[in-house]
Amino acid sequence: MMASARESDRRDPLKDHRTRFTVPDGVIYLDGNSLGVLPAGLGHRMSEVIEHQWGERLVRGWNDAGWIDLPSRVAGKIASLVGTSANCVAVGDSTSINVFKVLSAALSLRPSRRVILSDRNNFPTDLYVADGLTRLLGQGYELKLATAETMIDTLDESVAAVLLTEVDYRTGERYDMAAMTRHIHEKGAMAIWDLCHSAGAFPVHLDAAGADFAVGCGYKYLNGGPGAPAFLYVAERHLTSVTPALSGWMGHNAPFAFTTDYTPAEGIDRMEVGTPPILSLSALNIALDAFEGVDMTLVRQKSQELCDRFIFEVERRCPELELVTPRERAMRGSQVSFRHPEGYAIMQALIANGVIGDFRAPDILRFGMTPLYLRHTDILAAAETLERVMHERLWDREEYRSRAKVT
Amino acid sequence: MMASARESDRRDPLKDHRTRFTVPDGVIYLDGNSLGVLPAGLGHRMSEVIEHQWGERLVRGWNDAGWIDLPSRVAGKIASLVGTSANCVAVGDSTSINVFKVLSAALSLRPSRRVILSDRNNFPTDLYVADGLTRLLGQGYELKLATAETMIDTLDESVAAVLLTEVDYRTGERYDMAAMTRHIHEKGAMAIWDLCHSAGAFPVHLDAAGADFAVGCGYKYLNGGPGAPAFLYVAERHLTSVTPALSGWMGHNAPFAFTTDYTPAEGIDRMEVGTPPILSLSALNIALDAFEGVDMTLVRQKSQELCDRFIFEVERRCPELELVTPRERAMRGSQVSFRHPEGYAIMQALIANGVIGDFRAPDILRFGMTPLYLRHTDILAAAETLERVMHERLWDREEYRSRAKVT
Repeated sequence: MMASARESDRRDPLKDHRTRFTVPDGVIYLDGNSLGVLPAGLGHRMSEVIEHQWGERLVRGWNDAGWIDLPSRVAGKIASLVGTSANCVAVGDSTSINVFKVLSAALSLRPSRRVILSDRNNFPTDLYVADGLTRLLGQGYELKLATAETMIDTLDESVAAVLLTEVDYRTGERYDMAAMTRHIHEKGAMAIWDLCHSAGAFPVHLDAAGADFAVGCGYKYLNGGPGAPAFLYVAERHLTSVTPALSGWMGHNAPFAFTTDYTPAEGIDRMEVGTPPILSLSALNIALDAFEGVDMTLVRQKSQELCDRFIFEVERRCPELELVTPRERAMRGSQVSFRHPEGYAIMQALIANGVIGDFRAPDILRFGMTPLYLRHTDILAAAETLERVMHERLWDREEYRSRAKVT
Repeated sequence: MMASARESDRRDPLKDHRTRFTVPDGVIYLDGNSLGVLPAGLGHRMSEVIEHQWGERLVRGWNDAGWIDLPSRVAGKIASLVGTSANCVAVGDSTSINVFKVLSAALSLRPSRRVILSDRNNFPTDLYVADGLTRLLGQGYELKLATAETMIDTLDESVAAVLLTEVDYRTGERYDMAAMTRHIHEKGAMAIWDLCHSAGAFPVHLDAAGADFAVGCGYKYLNGGPGAPAFLYVAERHLTSVTPALSGWMGHNAPFAFTTDYTPAEGIDRMEVGTPPILSLSALNIALDAFEGVDMTLVRQKSQELCDRFIFEVERRCPELELVTPRERAMRGSQVSFRHPEGYAIMQALIANGVIGDFRAPDILRFGMTPLYLRHTDILAAAETLERVMHERLWDREEYRSRAKVT
């Protein structure tokens, strides 16, 4: 097994990319789907942003250091990872806020319909935000939930917008974005895709899939740092027809004219709202340079090899763990999840032994695969540690059962 | 004049606080009302956040480094500057987003009323956001605008909420928050105060004034860095009665239970939305330490002395500049503004000569007074430079007339 893993690492076309990141010694990090690792050199470049751009240029940084255009520059980098152009991507705010933005925009394009349809296994904040929007709007708006199995049958002409996360955050199961978007369009609804577990994990083709709107996260596979700004996508055909519900000055046609009346900016900029958080945004901007020249099809290929290897090694070592991620490559994202009633304690023990994944209620152990900084030998070593945790019952300690604030 | 300024500096009870900040050599910075200067040591402490908390602790930072509680800790620091307690302040998102949050909450508490009343000279993003909310809600909601002079007469029982910025961003004129809040309550409306030019500039007494809601900015007088997270305030009496329109997972009662249904958190936490931007928030958290032990009444006293000195020195040197800020101390915030048809070019020339203020369309030169890092001698020197710019017509150059993106 070790010989095979070493050979795979030797042949890995992405092996040199690991140097673009700082992975702590003694840690195998399988949680890049929750928080990506620190890109190499980011700390140094952030010192420059803080000490020089802010400290010395002060307010002049908006022009001199190009802060005012930073959201657009970051949007350009993200656009190339999600299959669209910079003029369809806006960067800023949190994923939750961006869900609100695109959902309210989508509803405005289907004014006679009242239903938002989503997956009951969708990441909760998407459901909470949709629920909050229906409450705010009243007038019969409602959120309906289905599952991946019942989604198409539930879709009908009452549905204004379908809000789905491409990759399920617990199971790693993946929707066929292009096919589902076609189904949604057949019923005349808007397709909104949450790319939190997609962007930077594998090639995404928003334009080609015909998506209407999308949102995504900056701090998972994009490595932008904890709570990094999120992004949103508006299909080019909708750019001039959506009026933002969150209409802040940065989305104004001429923010520095300080006029009383709101006139939305020409294109995607209208989806920006307040003053952008330059420090967090600079970190994301720097982090995205780690994708420079990266062929995302190679990332996808390696991701699937890592997933297959992990499934194989864990299943043969730990039969008491139940695989919940699809075995079929096309049906999954870039993570592997197992189920166990003692999942929480098992994960704590695993972390204490140097393998960092995470736990999702009620019983899911998640392992994210990030091909730019993970090696095949890491995957083998992680499986070996998991085997030890299970066979020696290292998890069976009171300290591993007491829940932390963030699990 | 110089002797008097030097004497004032010598006697200044806040003189030692300047060392808490890094003001670049050769610059007199009168733009802390737009972007506060870099607090001393912040760069070093941010390196720790980036390299150690993120780089080494990785996802464990949410618990180990206390990221999950960081919004609450920052809220506690801000609360003490605005006259309330930590359980009434939520930190995160931009000011614009926070205006949306508190305005939608205020409207929900006056369901039979349809009017938002604001000041036509309010900072535009407040008006844009209010306008966007009325468009989203439809059903007869509308934004009405008055001026400081006509505000009380325009207030009637149709008004659900009055949205005012305490200090006018252009003129520096200040509303009497307590008196105006009483007028607003007499008509049964909700009082929402924008503290962007108040928090950190002088003592604010939200609870005592009876304010219902407030918002404020982290990057002006609080020195949190460009685009720092903003904050909001909800009066204790409303805490359990407002259901957030922007209902994200961080405002959920149990975010890590990952339940399908939204249940708001017990208190002010319900006003949080998405994952907090830890890097920008850490910078704000560090910056607020510069207020530790600071007596805000001394800040107010010195601010008014600096304003008076600047008005006196400029008016006698540059009679062609028209003062637009009230002379009466109680009627102004912590800035001094002058009007001139060539204001833009004058400000560019002034900046080129080492005095940084800013320009606000159509003709306002703004000078912010930040007593923690400004000296009386700075104010005198700034007036002398302005005199030179005016008398030698240094502003009369083509390069100073061409507008930058951010003015």
